[in-house]
Amino acid sequence: MSKEALAKEIAQVALLRGNFTLRSGKTSTYYLDKYLFSTRPELLGQLAPLFAERLDGLESRLDLEIDRIAGAELGGIPLVTAASLATGLPVIFVRNKKKDYGTSKQLEGAVEKGDVVVLLEDVATTGGQALEAVEVLREAGAKVIAVIATIDRLEGARENIEKAGLLFESLFTVHELGVQT
Amino acid sequence: MSKEALAKEIAQVALLRGNFTLRSGKTSTYYLDKYLFSTRPELLGQLAPLFAERLDGLESRLDLEIDRIAGAELGGIPLVTAASLATGLPVIFVRNKKKDYGTSKQLEGAVEKGDVVVLLEDVATTGGQALEAVEVLREAGAKVIAVIATIDRLEGARENIEKAGLLFESLFTVHELGVQT
Repeated sequence: MSKEALAKEIAQVALLRGNFTLRSGKTSTYYLDKYLFSTRPELLGQLAPLFAERLDGLESRLDLEIDRIAGAELGGIPLVTAASLATGLPVIFVRNKKKDYGTSKQLEGAVEKGDVVVLLEDVATTGGQALEAVEVLREAGAKVIAVIATIDRLEGARENIEKAGLLFESLFTVHELGVQT
Repeated sequence: MSKEALAKEIAQVALLRGNFTLRSGKTSTYYLDKYLFSTRPELLGQLAPLFAERLDGLESRLDLEIDRIAGAELGGIPLVTAASLATGLPVIFVRNKKKDYGTSKQLEGAVEKGDVVVLLEDVATTGGQALEAVEVLREAGAKVIAVIATIDRLEGARENIEKAGLLFESLFTVHELGVQT
């Protein structure tokens, strides 16, 4: 399937029209239900090599080796798992902050001080959730260099993530999914 | 890698000795950190075809078609994702019960009334977590027929899950991982 055809498929299954309040507090006339594509192996299986290409590209351009890829609970987990199977890179799962259990473990999987890590994200809006996960990874000593989103809603994620000293890429923008902004 | 060699590898990376209190409240002299194998693609990638074999086996023996496979947050997600990519079966993610948000969505991905579903579990102890997830799936109209655990600690999961009218299988028992019980 071409990248264009994949974008069309994703829009067909996961793009919902209506009135929505996003996690960031913004309202929107559309919503991307990431689970509607990440629970379909015929779509997830095609996203994995696209992540692999981006990771390869980062390694070449920056002349470094990525040690691990990370994904945040819950939406990032299937994406990073598929990318891990496609690339052979080990994974770190980042849990949401638990208000009740301030000291509970927020990272699952191995992480070593100085590990070069890329965070894979599902749908990026303002980038807030990605930056929270990056913060947790940095506290654990990881050298997070980039965030790769599956879909960029084009609402500030790139600017905010770059401001935090990270590279930002996305496999698709909402324009490629047929959304006018 | 043979199944025996895979069991050895899993034990080597994920089997921790010490004194632990399990989710079920029991104490134990060992703990299986499932994330230490599910975050390693060279191990996760070998579990996926083992799940696929069991799913095929269930379909043949019961003369039915499995519509979807399910996994519970958080440990089940990478396992069910890998199995989905290996089998082409779509996935349902089951969220933990949120005490604060009683009415929030507990299932992610599509599920239709009457869907034949198998739940994949990471480490089964008493089966309590698996049965909670089965209950949520049943409330949504799914016909859950079986639970397949990655590792069975042999502490009552089979009995409890069979009592709930489900088949139970495991890829490995703790004995195969070298634990004496």
